[in-house]
Amino acid sequence: MPETWEIREGEVALEHDPSLQPNAGVVFIGTIRSPWTKREDCPKNIGRAREAGRAATVVLKPELAPALAGLKVGQPIVLMYWMNRARRDLLVQNPRHVGDPRGTFALRSPNRPNPIALSTVVITSLDPDAGVVGIDAIDCLDGTPVVDIKPWLETVDIPPA
Amino acid sequence: MPETWEIREGEVALEHDPSLQPNAGVVFIGTIRSPWTKREDCPKNIGRAREAGRAATVVLKPELAPALAGLKVGQPIVLMYWMNRARRDLLVQNPRHVGDPRGTFALRSPNRPNPIALSTVVITSLDPDAGVVGIDAIDCLDGTPVVDIKPWLETVDIPPA
Repeated sequence: MPETWEIREGEVALEHDPSLQPNAGVVFIGTIRSPWTKREDCPKNIGRAREAGRAATVVLKPELAPALAGLKVGQPIVLMYWMNRARRDLLVQNPRHVGDPRGTFALRSPNRPNPIALSTVVITSLDPDAGVVGIDAIDCLDGTPVVDIKPWLETVDIPPA
Repeated sequence: MPETWEIREGEVALEHDPSLQPNAGVVFIGTIRSPWTKREDCPKNIGRAREAGRAATVVLKPELAPALAGLKVGQPIVLMYWMNRARRDLLVQNPRHVGDPRGTFALRSPNRPNPIALSTVVITSLDPDAGVVGIDAIDCLDGTPVVDIKPWLETVDIPPA
């Protein structure tokens, strides 16, 4: 269930919660086991998470383990995870670290119409039979659902020169 | 509706379509207007799309236009789009260009439990009032639904050195 937060100065919300009328369904492919069990301890982004030097693990649903075939230790991946405590109705947000209100699509805030977070992480260990992937760091709470794993590709994930 | 494709040699599918039991709902925030109206013309990835030299447009739902505030022409963004013609049950795939069967999570194929594609593109024009964003290229069919727009950030979207 999303938590209720106060609207800060300059913030704008939709009049309705868009998630009440979904257009398609997402399936959770697994769960992130992270060192962060309390919101106040959780790093605000993957850079801070990496500085903390704590590894994390992606535990897939067992029936999806065969879909890991071909991934390798040391390889960068794009992890998509579902920020299930986020608000989905905010159009303009005023995060403390930014200083002025900014549109949701100009921010990496978890609060967005589809609360899917995205980080590029590195595979540190791999147990394809068990469906378990070790990663170097993560910036979400323990138990966060996973939506996708993709190989990170320079030609797709870096903007053109 | 997903199209039905033949299973190729070496491919493995789940016995059930996971999308029949979703865990959360996705809302479409808008639509991609792309030059590609037929599957056979559509570039296979964003690199090829860029070589084709054809621009594209993201048209947001009007009520979401305020969420663009703060984005700028020339800025790279991560675009998430919903590949609504993809299969969601494939665990191992044998794409023609790869040559050997590989797990879904080791491929950028649109066929995956959650058919969300991801490309880093550049904003070429911006009409925040109309909710229209011009982008340099895209590798999906005209009319593909959009799920999210995020600012591309070097610290989040490039793997650590």
